[in-house]
Amino acid sequence: MVMTEDEKKLTAYHEGGHALVSFNMPSYDPIHKATIIPRGRALGMVMNLPERDKHGHSIKYLKARLAVCFGGRVAEEVIFGKDNISTGAGGGSGSDINQATQLARAMVTKYGMSEEMGPVEYGENQEEVFLGRSVTQTQSVSEEVAQKIDKEIRKLVDEGYNKAKEILTEKIDDLHKIAKALMTYETLTGEEIENIITKNIYPADKQDLKVDDDKSSALGAMGLKPKIVH
Amino acid sequence: MVMTEDEKKLTAYHEGGHALVSFNMPSYDPIHKATIIPRGRALGMVMNLPERDKHGHSIKYLKARLAVCFGGRVAEEVIFGKDNISTGAGGGSGSDINQATQLARAMVTKYGMSEEMGPVEYGENQEEVFLGRSVTQTQSVSEEVAQKIDKEIRKLVDEGYNKAKEILTEKIDDLHKIAKALMTYETLTGEEIENIITKNIYPADKQDLKVDDDKSSALGAMGLKPKIVH
Amino acid sequence: MVMTEDEKKLTAYHEGGHALVSFNMPSYDPIHKATIIPRGRALGMVMNLPERDKHGHSIKYLKARLAVCFGGRVAEEVIFGKDNISTGAGGGSGSDINQATQLARAMVTKYGMSEEMGPVEYGENQEEVFLGRSVTQTQSVSEEVAQKIDKEIRKLVDEGYNKAKEILTEKIDDLHKIAKALMTYETLTGEEIENIITKNIYPADKQDLKVDDDKSSALGAMGLKPKIVH
Amino acid sequence: MVMTEDEKKLTAYHEGGHALVSFNMPSYDPIHKATIIPRGRALGMVMNLPERDKHGHSIKYLKARLAVCFGGRVAEEVIFGKDNISTGAGGGSGSDINQATQLARAMVTKYGMSEEMGPVEYGENQEEVFLGRSVTQTQSVSEEVAQKIDKEIRKLVDEGYNKAKEILTEKIDDLHKIAKALMTYETLTGEEIENIITKNIYPADKQDLKVDDDKSSALGAMGLKPKIVH
Amino acid sequence: MVMTEDEKKLTAYHEGGHALVSFNMPSYDPIHKATIIPRGRALGMVMNLPERDKHGHSIKYLKARLAVCFGGRVAEEVIFGKDNISTGAGGGSGSDINQATQLARAMVTKYGMSEEMGPVEYGENQEEVFLGRSVTQTQSVSEEVAQKIDKEIRKLVDEGYNKAKEILTEKIDDLHKIAKALMTYETLTGEEIENIITKNIYPADKQDLKVDDDKSSALGAMGLKPKIVH
Amino acid sequence: MVMTEDEKKLTAYHEGGHALVSFNMPSYDPIHKATIIPRGRALGMVMNLPERDKHGHSIKYLKARLAVCFGGRVAEEVIFGKDNISTGAGGGSGSDINQATQLARAMVTKYGMSEEMGPVEYGENQEEVFLGRSVTQTQSVSEEVAQKIDKEIRKLVDEGYNKAKEILTEKIDDLHKIAKALMTYETLTGEEIENIITKNIYPADKQDLKVDDDKSSALGAMGLKPKIVH
Repeated sequence: MVMTEDEKKLTAYHEGGHALVSFNMPSYDPIHKATIIPRGRALGMVMNLPERDKHGHSIKYLKARLAVCFGGRVAEEVIFGKDNISTGAGGGSGSDINQATQLARAMVTKYGMSEEMGPVEYGENQEEVFLGRSVTQTQSVSEEVAQKIDKEIRKLVDEGYNKAKEILTEKIDDLHKIAKALMTYETLTGEEIENIITKNIYPADKQDLKVDDDKSSALGAMGLKPKIVH
Repeated sequence: MVMTEDEKKLTAYHEGGHALVSFNMPSYDPIHKATIIPRGRALGMVMNLPERDKHGHSIKYLKARLAVCFGGRVAEEVIFGKDNISTGAGGGSGSDINQATQLARAMVTKYGMSEEMGPVEYGENQEEVFLGRSVTQTQSVSEEVAQKIDKEIRKLVDEGYNKAKEILTEKIDDLHKIAKALMTYETLTGEEIENIITKNIYPADKQDLKVDDDKSSALGAMGLKPKIVH
Repeated sequence: MVMTEDEKKLTAYHEGGHALVSFNMPSYDPIHKATIIPRGRALGMVMNLPERDKHGHSIKYLKARLAVCFGGRVAEEVIFGKDNISTGAGGGSGSDINQATQLARAMVTKYGMSEEMGPVEYGENQEEVFLGRSVTQTQSVSEEVAQKIDKEIRKLVDEGYNKAKEILTEKIDDLHKIAKALMTYETLTGEEIENIITKNIYPADKQDLKVDDDKSSALGAMGLKPKIVH
Repeated sequence: MVMTEDEKKLTAYHEGGHALVSFNMPSYDPIHKATIIPRGRALGMVMNLPERDKHGHSIKYLKARLAVCFGGRVAEEVIFGKDNISTGAGGGSGSDINQATQLARAMVTKYGMSEEMGPVEYGENQEEVFLGRSVTQTQSVSEEVAQKIDKEIRKLVDEGYNKAKEILTEKIDDLHKIAKALMTYETLTGEEIENIITKNIYPADKQDLKVDDDKSSALGAMGLKPKIVH
Repeated sequence: MVMTEDEKKLTAYHEGGHALVSFNMPSYDPIHKATIIPRGRALGMVMNLPERDKHGHSIKYLKARLAVCFGGRVAEEVIFGKDNISTGAGGGSGSDINQATQLARAMVTKYGMSEEMGPVEYGENQEEVFLGRSVTQTQSVSEEVAQKIDKEIRKLVDEGYNKAKEILTEKIDDLHKIAKALMTYETLTGEEIENIITKNIYPADKQDLKVDDDKSSALGAMGLKPKIVH
Repeated sequence: MVMTEDEKKLTAYHEGGHALVSFNMPSYDPIHKATIIPRGRALGMVMNLPERDKHGHSIKYLKARLAVCFGGRVAEEVIFGKDNISTGAGGGSGSDINQATQLARAMVTKYGMSEEMGPVEYGENQEEVFLGRSVTQTQSVSEEVAQKIDKEIRKLVDEGYNKAKEILTEKIDDLHKIAKALMTYETLTGEEIENIITKNIYPADKQDLKVDDDKSSALGAMGLKPKIVH
């Protein structure tokens, strides 16, 4: 996959946005690495790595994840203007929006994390198997409740979006630094990102830290499931 | 499954919450045991055991069950604050919410236990088999009735949640005692829980009472189906 | 299936309620027998036997059936209080509610027995077979009509419930008599019930009249289909 | 199938009602015969025979058919009172209501016979076959239109019902005459019915005119499809 | 198929109505022939023949087609009165209504020919094949939009109906002339119809121009698809 | 496929409209060629060719595409009047409307490009496979949200339509020039179109640049996917 300079720049700011929001959300997982080396249909990605496997997530953590999800798109908006927000390729904003919406929906309808909706499960789809076929039993969700669910999802999404915007507007200099470093080095580890932001120390003599299948498998074997945004 | 100390503590309070609410609801079944030893995808559980197999449940009993369902999540809220309420793992709050919603829905739409909705069955799904295929016949439930059903379910759920909160706020010292005992001993029988709460007597020289498949099968053979919350 | 004394008492009053309402509805079929001997998943039952096979039912007859359906649950309410109304086992209130709702729905949507809805069939589900598959054609029922249907069903159900309550409140002494007789003899014929209520004559030297498969088959062969409530 | 005297009487008035309404609707087909000899699940029937095969039906004809459909039920109401209106057996009111509703629905949604709805087809169900499976494409019918359709169907049905009531109330003596003749002779031809009503001449020495399969086949071979109400 | 004189007359006016509206709509295709010789389930038909194969249709043309569609039914109404409007046989009004509704719906929801609805496609049914099965993805069409669509379809249909009524009322003498000629000759070519209307010249010594399969195939081979109304 | 002169003219203005709008939208891809040589079911087409393969599209680009989509239909309207807007053949307005609606819908519901709707994914269709069958889980979208989505799609579509109208009204002379050149040469390259508009230079001695399968395959092999409007 060949990228133009423009696309490389857009991608660097998109991934830089994810990384910088993540860096500023202490309740979220630390960054493992950020890269603008294309992989599959994605032009780049930021991979966060929980320090250890987790058995559940707090509201605080999930709200941080929502903000990180929107870091890429908000960076595009802040740097290139609204008209140039992009659909992205493979990953990109469309995929981030999909992830954020599903997460917000689960928070509202499965985990009782909206006070407005209470600790109730909504719209679950109970299935029964009948003669080897799945018979769907949908449950009555009134229009009134459906409207409230839509509003609560929107509220959580907007909260995450605004948090990302607040961080990236305030720390726009850091965003430029990370995006430029990504354009130079293509891949940065979490530690390198921290050095750039806090100490202005850039990796010297850096070898490209290519995405490495074996390593990622090794991580998998340790039970660590990295969270990826594109 | 390896838990961090934080997760162990969260689980101890979650299961302690279920246990303490259960202990304070005389119309519910007695506690068989509470444990924070992970099993399958669940980090812990409280098992209640009806004194004998029952052939039906009263409104009073089912409302008590709703409160017990929310004991875990409410304990998290009371002890760690709203922002740290967790999705849980395997079981956890998501699973408790699912159980409570299904129970409340059945009370409203199947058992005529909401005065507002009356002794009417709502939204039943009649199926007929036609040439070996199931033909679903959904029945007309108006939006107006769907809204009322949603409200009645919410009312029952909130009642259970508030009952759990009332108990755990009032008896927060007992909650600390049970949670700490669970962190120490990992498993407590119903009798040990009673001794801790009422007499401050702790099990001495306790051997871990591991979840025992054979025993549980034996219980099954006696026709006793334990009620479990995670 | 082993019942506790409490369950036996609950069942005796539940079945006694069905029987007493039935006894006081002259337009309904006469009682064949009432029993609290468990059978399958049901804890007891009352069996009514039309004097001969019928080829249709009048509104009056069907309204009586609605009252009989609720006799069991209302007896629980009148004797043990609202909080102790039970889901029943196998049969029980859930099953009675299901039967009553289906009957009321058919009266409203199939037999034109609600003046409000008129002699119109609503929500019928026409099926056509296409290449050996059933193709469902649902018809337009507006929300407005769906609301009216829901209200008319509720009205019929409430009427039946209130009729049952009126009878059982007024004749509470008869209810105690039948329930106690059921606890003593376990099964009573329609004639014995009549003797108990009207003449205070109790069966002497009674042998248990067990539910008898052969007999019930014999009845079936005569074209008589007994109506059963649990 | 054995009928009691009561059922025979109910059936005689039910079929008599169909026949008398039919007799008084000049735009409808002439009566071929009326019978209370049970056949299949039906307790009786009135068979109308178009003078020759028709290639379409006028609004006037279809409205007459609606009135004839309700003749049976209205006769039950007029003679035995509302509380004794019956579900009928096999045929009966349920079946009449089904026929009338389907006819009224087609008039409104297929044949443009309601001025309110105009010459528009509503709710048609277009099907396409895809890889040997039928794919249903339902079309947008708004709630507003669905409400209007429901009202127009009700209006046509009520018009037919009221027409039947008007005729049977006014000509109640004729109804008694026909019903009694049916109880005596069990089957009457259209000509005999006319003689009874207009000339008080009753069939002498009448042999039962049994429903005759061969004859009905012969009629079928002539392309004549009798219209039957139960 | 044998028609009575009444049916023949009704059919002659029905087809005459289609023909006369068509004759007065210059933007529609010229008439190829009109006939009241039954064919299949249709009692008659008017066949229009585009001068050559067309690759698209203008709004003007489609609105003319709507008027032609209603020519048959409106002629029945104008000549025999509203109560005698007929369902038709095979073809007839039901089929005309179906054609007109589908055309009007496509104009509104596919071709952007309603200014109110704009150049937007509504309610399309996108299908994807998944493991050899068609998975239907219906798209969100709000009730508000569904109501507007229903209104716009009705508006187009009413416009066509009123246009047909205007023509047939004004030119009722021409309608009588064509209908009578159809009753005499059974089939008329477009040219003959023109001669009758404009010059009062009737075909002399006319041989029945029977519907001729070979000829119609020949037309098909030339890529000409005749438009038929019944 | 044989076109009349009228159809050729209509097609030339339709394709000319697409081309001219495209030419005036600098954020859209450059024109590769425009042709009125029929191909398959399409009477003509304009093919745009991105300078290189793109990995995502900005809002600005997609809005330009919406305007280009409507260029054909708007040209018909501007030149021939509203009543002569055509359904087109194969491609044509129906196909343009379909493309534009799907694009606008994706912008609103997938890519968060409507500020009103926010960066939320709406109406997604999650599928799970169960025993080798796809089980559709539709998610709750309230009527309120469905209405807003419909409005936002309409807004984007209208914006594109109006942009096309603005350009074609203002540059109507250029439209005449391109349409006439298309009628003369049948196919024009992007460069030729530019020469005609900006320098009044027409291709001399031009050979028909027929649509060439091999060439188009070659383009495909280079990873270039041309955007086509009909």
